Amino acid sequence: MGVVFSVFGLGRAGLPLAAYISSKGYKVIGIDPNKRIVDMVNKGVNPYPDEPGLDELIEKLGGKELIASTSYKDAAEANVHIIIVPLGLDEEKRPVYKYLEAAVRNVGKILKKGDLVVIETTVPPFTTERLVKDWLEEESGLKLGEYYLAHSPERIITGKVFEVLETYPKVVGGVDKASGEYAYKIYKLFIKDIHLVSSARVAEITKLMEGIYRDVNIALANLFYMMCEELGIDFFEAREHANHHKHTHILLPSTGVGGHCIPVYPWFIINEFTSRGQEGLVKLLLESRRINDGMVEYWADKIEEYIGSSSDNPNKMKICIKGIAFKPGVSIISGSRNIVLAKTLMDRGLDVYVYDDNISKEVVESMGLRWLEPAKADVVFDTASLKIYRNKV
Amino acid sequence: MGVVFSVFGLGRAGLPLAAYISSKGYKVIGIDPNKRIVDMVNKGVNPYPDEPGLDELIEKLGGKELIASTSYKDAAEANVHIIIVPLGLDEEKRPVYKYLEAAVRNVGKILKKGDLVVIETTVPPFTTERLVKDWLEEESGLKLGEYYLAHSPERIITGKVFEVLETYPKVVGGVDKASGEYAYKIYKLFIKDIHLVSSARVAEITKLMEGIYRDVNIALANLFYMMCEELGIDFFEAREHANHHKHTHILLPSTGVGGHCIPVYPWFIINEFTSRGQEGLVKLLLESRRINDGMVEYWADKIEEYIGSSSDNPNKMKICIKGIAFKPGVSIISGSRNIVLAKTLMDRGLDVYVYDDNISKEVVESMGLRWLEPAKADVVFDTASLKIYRNKV
Repeated sequence: MGVVFSVFGLGRAGLPLAAYISSKGYKVIGIDPNKRIVDMVNKGVNPYPDEPGLDELIEKLGGKELIASTSYKDAAEANVHIIIVPLGLDEEKRPVYKYLEAAVRNVGKILKKGDLVVIETTVPPFTTERLVKDWLEEESGLKLGEYYLAHSPERIITGKVFEVLETYPKVVGGVDKASGEYAYKIYKLFIKDIHLVSSARVAEITKLMEGIYRDVNIALANLFYMMCEELGIDFFEAREHANHHKHTHILLPSTGVGGHCIPVYPWFIINEFTSRGQEGLVKLLLESRRINDGMVEYWADKIEEYIGSSSDNPNKMKICIKGIAFKPGVSIISGSRNIVLAKTLMDRGLDVYVYDDNISKEVVESMGLRWLEPAKADVVFDTASLKIYRNKV
Repeated sequence: MGVVFSVFGLGRAGLPLAAYISSKGYKVIGIDPNKRIVDMVNKGVNPYPDEPGLDELIEKLGGKELIASTSYKDAAEANVHIIIVPLGLDEEKRPVYKYLEAAVRNVGKILKKGDLVVIETTVPPFTTERLVKDWLEEESGLKLGEYYLAHSPERIITGKVFEVLETYPKVVGGVDKASGEYAYKIYKLFIKDIHLVSSARVAEITKLMEGIYRDVNIALANLFYMMCEELGIDFFEAREHANHHKHTHILLPSTGVGGHCIPVYPWFIINEFTSRGQEGLVKLLLESRRINDGMVEYWADKIEEYIGSSSDNPNKMKICIKGIAFKPGVSIISGSRNIVLAKTLMDRGLDVYVYDDNISKEVVESMGLRWLEPAKADVVFDTASLKIYRNKV
């Protein structure tokens, strides 16, 4: 029998992955509870039109080699099940497993002897070998050895998903040796640069280390920026020359770390070691989170200070936050710190508008924010360059 | 008149720099209070034989184009004065300016109109434009404009000084525009990849940011190592795959950060902001220092635990610390955390010996430590690979 894939989760990571696998000549069944997404895919219409290359693949494959459904039962014929669903944090920064658990239990209900399950969702340590394995076995009645289970963390970068899938290295590790080897063989079918590691937990920590590296280094860049401002030094000039040193990689400062990945992953590790009573191992991570989350207040203060130094009435000045996506160049506003900044300034009683090259006036207004072209504002804060400037009257 | 250089400080950074400039065809007068070093140089004998390439240059130039002296008065004919002397910390982690102040004041005593002074010593922010300028002007009676003053932080890496001077980018910035431009012109005579920045303070912070980047990232590597150990994961395997991601640069863990550079520079910034009452800006730096300084205790515990799990009497087992220089591949023990580790284990009543491929038995014993070949010990800790192992009996 040939390989048939199911992909649980047709979000911004899952749908491109499903389409990519399908484009390599495999039948793929995509499962998602969102009926709108499922219907669009089956009609050959891309629900994420800002992802380069996805339009063509969905148009070509949607409803044919790539079939979407809201029911896990439609994935029964698949023998490789990839789970790529959100795993966020609750108010207490604890992981919210409900989407993962639901997807895994559904896979468990259709799991057959010889099937492979791969978790692509980034997860806290041991999730694959403990929680996922238990859920699968409870539902399926199968035991490891009768099925295979591995972790291969997605490394997707929104806006260049296919470049990443085509050219980036990818890691896979099994909960046992046979699972790792089989998952490696299957992934080799569609990922050129696939790397087998010794266990699922190594694959899990690899992804968490990448995210934490980035969060800590963004915090350091933000610190350096604030220090340079205090010292009367142009941070960008100093950074350029410090980074001439081939072993120095100082990142860019920002309004904080947005999105649903980098600000989330440190908490997986912070929770793990806090629950072990080893707070000393996570202080650096907590401090990095504190710095990055504090950047909204820092920039709100800077903008207020800039406005306060003007001769006009601060409350009557139109302020435009230019660039409100969670990072420059994309249209995603979910998890954006720039939105938090706009709302913080509004809460302070200022006359705040927003603008983004990639986001329409309608979308802005649907979020309860007001849209204004930067040229028509009195003061503009550009979240990409971090420049606050006044438009000439 | 041609350019004649003085170099104040003939240590491991200053002497190679003096020799390098001299090798480009310039007369260089090197000043150092250490008579032994001065005499060796003038006889053409290299006092730092482990620095590749230095033997040849000192033999060729020493006492001829490169003249050493203990008296600053012998540098009176120089019109470019480079100061490259130690600047360490006292017990309270405050900068010890005495060597810098002495060298600067001596330069001030021979300073002539039109001379250039360049500080290569890595210094706290504003040192060049405030302290150094004041000392120079007090001694010389000259005012900026009559002389030039700049900062160009050394980026020397012991063991490959000439490779660095020949191929690495180097930064220079003046306390005023004329100083920067003149210093750039002079450095261009012997440094290929010289970069002019807008001020001396930008040059200062560039070097401090490099050092702090490294200290924080070594702390992060040490954290990741300790976390992986707790989780039963091979850190080196996880690191290798995390670093496949082209934007991830996780460094290597260690017994801490040794030497007189990286563990020192964060304190320059910590002091600056603590004295401004801005402790929030330096918590990440303090935590990184805490982690790195704590690695000696961590490894002492690991070694004790390893020995304790053996059937033999722990106090009778010969333990060899293999690799005691401040970093692998050099013979410098000053500031080495590996020496601190050996002494920590001795204080715990264990039978400790040390060994290093690059350090003789005599030198080891002169430090009050005992030398033993690793093969003759019961248990070896290799500080480079971080492996603790038992020799087969």
